[in-house]
Amino acid sequence: MIFKTANPTRLYFGENSISNLITELEGAQKILVTYGKGSVKKTGLYDEVIKVLEDNNKEVFELAGIKPNPDIANAYEGIEICKSKNIDLVLAVGGTSVIDCSKIIAIGAKYDGDIWEPIKNKDFTLKDRTKLGVILTNAATSSENNYYAVISNEKEKLKLGTAFWPMASPDFSILDPKYTVTVPEKATMESIVDICSHLIETYFNTKDINNPIIKILNTELELMIKEMVNIGPKLINDLTNIEYRETMMFIASQALSTRVRHVLGGDWACHQMEHGLSGVYDRVSHGGGLAILTPNWMDYSVDKHTTKFKQMAVNIFDISTEGKSDLDIAEEGIMAFRNFLNNIGAPSTLSDYDIDDSDIDEIILKSLNGNKSIGGMCSLDAGAIREIFDKSM
Amino acid sequence: MIFKTANPTRLYFGENSISNLITELEGAQKILVTYGKGSVKKTGLYDEVIKVLEDNNKEVFELAGIKPNPDIANAYEGIEICKSKNIDLVLAVGGTSVIDCSKIIAIGAKYDGDIWEPIKNKDFTLKDRTKLGVILTNAATSSENNYYAVISNEKEKLKLGTAFWPMASPDFSILDPKYTVTVPEKATMESIVDICSHLIETYFNTKDINNPIIKILNTELELMIKEMVNIGPKLINDLTNIEYRETMMFIASQALSTRVRHVLGGDWACHQMEHGLSGVYDRVSHGGGLAILTPNWMDYSVDKHTTKFKQMAVNIFDISTEGKSDLDIAEEGIMAFRNFLNNIGAPSTLSDYDIDDSDIDEIILKSLNGNKSIGGMCSLDAGAIREIFDKSM
Repeated sequence: MIFKTANPTRLYFGENSISNLITELEGAQKILVTYGKGSVKKTGLYDEVIKVLEDNNKEVFELAGIKPNPDIANAYEGIEICKSKNIDLVLAVGGTSVIDCSKIIAIGAKYDGDIWEPIKNKDFTLKDRTKLGVILTNAATSSENNYYAVISNEKEKLKLGTAFWPMASPDFSILDPKYTVTVPEKATMESIVDICSHLIETYFNTKDINNPIIKILNTELELMIKEMVNIGPKLINDLTNIEYRETMMFIASQALSTRVRHVLGGDWACHQMEHGLSGVYDRVSHGGGLAILTPNWMDYSVDKHTTKFKQMAVNIFDISTEGKSDLDIAEEGIMAFRNFLNNIGAPSTLSDYDIDDSDIDEIILKSLNGNKSIGGMCSLDAGAIREIFDKSM
Repeated sequence: MIFKTANPTRLYFGENSISNLITELEGAQKILVTYGKGSVKKTGLYDEVIKVLEDNNKEVFELAGIKPNPDIANAYEGIEICKSKNIDLVLAVGGTSVIDCSKIIAIGAKYDGDIWEPIKNKDFTLKDRTKLGVILTNAATSSENNYYAVISNEKEKLKLGTAFWPMASPDFSILDPKYTVTVPEKATMESIVDICSHLIETYFNTKDINNPIIKILNTELELMIKEMVNIGPKLINDLTNIEYRETMMFIASQALSTRVRHVLGGDWACHQMEHGLSGVYDRVSHGGGLAILTPNWMDYSVDKHTTKFKQMAVNIFDISTEGKSDLDIAEEGIMAFRNFLNNIGAPSTLSDYDIDDSDIDEIILKSLNGNKSIGGMCSLDAGAIREIFDKSM
């Protein structure tokens, strides 16, 4: 087995973890606070953060209005502030979109040229960035604990993943579950889907299940998926429950850390299809797109990888095996997964987003992103992707 | 729940992972290679490393002869080289002793004054160090993937743990299982014990077992202990088996990472007693001391924490429960753990090291290290420590 891992972010987890901010601000004088469309102002977190900064005599700059599926234009704006004001620390106060955009800002701030160029060319060899901290307001993608960032370019109708290893990982992230209790039902649902998707994409890897290292990590994934399936519907019915929020925040931070992702690999075709989809329709949320595509991907894959789907059914969804064929068991597992998605109120067809098949060719092209096929476990060519999207209509 | 974690070390795991060394050497011109008593010369690793350094035109300096239970005198020597030669990177080629000593060297190199002073005063606030890399030759303590270092002071008869969080974590560690196949039987046994001890010390924590985060991490510990119990005796009988070495190397790197340690806490009295013991008798290896003390600590603790020991018995050692009292089940688990230690050839009494009770008072004092009691789950005062050592004679 060959892999490399690094999880350099200093994670401060739990109640009042913002108290660690002061130590982390040492040596940084000019702070660029980045945030989204203003929910941090409504919740009071914005005021709390600004107060800490001002009490510690920091010079505060702001980039507001970073949108979901953040656009490179947002990043350009932040990079300009960093360069013209000599910013010492980018402090992202928000969820994944704000963090991802802030990663690109922090890297672009130290890059001479247009940061979109290396991103588009998949040249992730840049080594320097401005210091980056996170105060997390929605637990979803592990962006607070990994080096990935997704950024769109509306003009070019592209949504691309970046992987500046490992330097794009934030220097520190403050993870207080209480900052997430105000996340509304729909966004909470989408985040639950995204967390589960990261775990499931990684779970459908092709590593040797008899290798003890693989066994340990696969089991960890099963435990985490099972716990998300357990708390997901309860949380949707009890959005301010701090225990559920706490569990979700922890699992989210681990689900796409390099520790499991880099060792196991995974499939990731659903993520690539979803990037194709929301690259064309930015009204589709990442979690919403995944909720629609993943079960249909499962239906497409189940007879080709029945053993793995059976394992999911038994170990995660407690499907009984007696008197059933492997395929029956596997399909019952997929049904249980669909039930779970229904229970959290996830969308199940593209028509939920008023999408028909008129742009399907463009979506397929963007899903393939220059490759002939996608999918680490179950290889999907253009025809297979079309089949899955057809089923998703 | 409140915790902080960070696992910043870039781990390069697997066959030929030394190929990553060249990238990691970028920007470093003067390299201090540190190693132990010369086994790296016998195995050829020393030549391999020096060749990479010379092929890349690095200026190479050396500190040889770092001993097991490394002494602060070793560190002083390395610090002197770093300071006088302006070393850019300390490259530790060896096992825990070499790594731990190199951590102190890298930190001491940037400290004006005697590095023993902050260590003795438990002042771990220093923020700067020389760059530090590791090429691991024995999988044992996670030192390659954490910020802990143990260092002795022979003159003061002290053996102290340090915890410069998280900056003492190496920048990178190269983990190729093939470098560990030459570790002799006794050292392999001691490392197996140490790995198990880290997992077990963490396992005996007082966190709420009904909290999902705790459940997930406790289960991870169970999986790792179970796998060590499985492969341990097989590896002892087949020392060059690369699969067993690979599994051991992975588990060792995770066992004392901040991910589990910082979340769960643990007991750690056995480690403190062992540090007391080998602080007085440096002929006692860390693993050997732990093998003797841990089962006797279990005997002492079992009736006070029966539920947790029962959990160990059932989940790790597959002890059947039918018709038995909880205490019976728990004690069968301890018996199974003793059998495992016997199967890997671990020592079971202090007389194996020709130690009687003549220095027991000093050992107890050093075990307590200024505290009235030790142990996160099962509190041990001087009397309890004496009882455990008496049983260990």
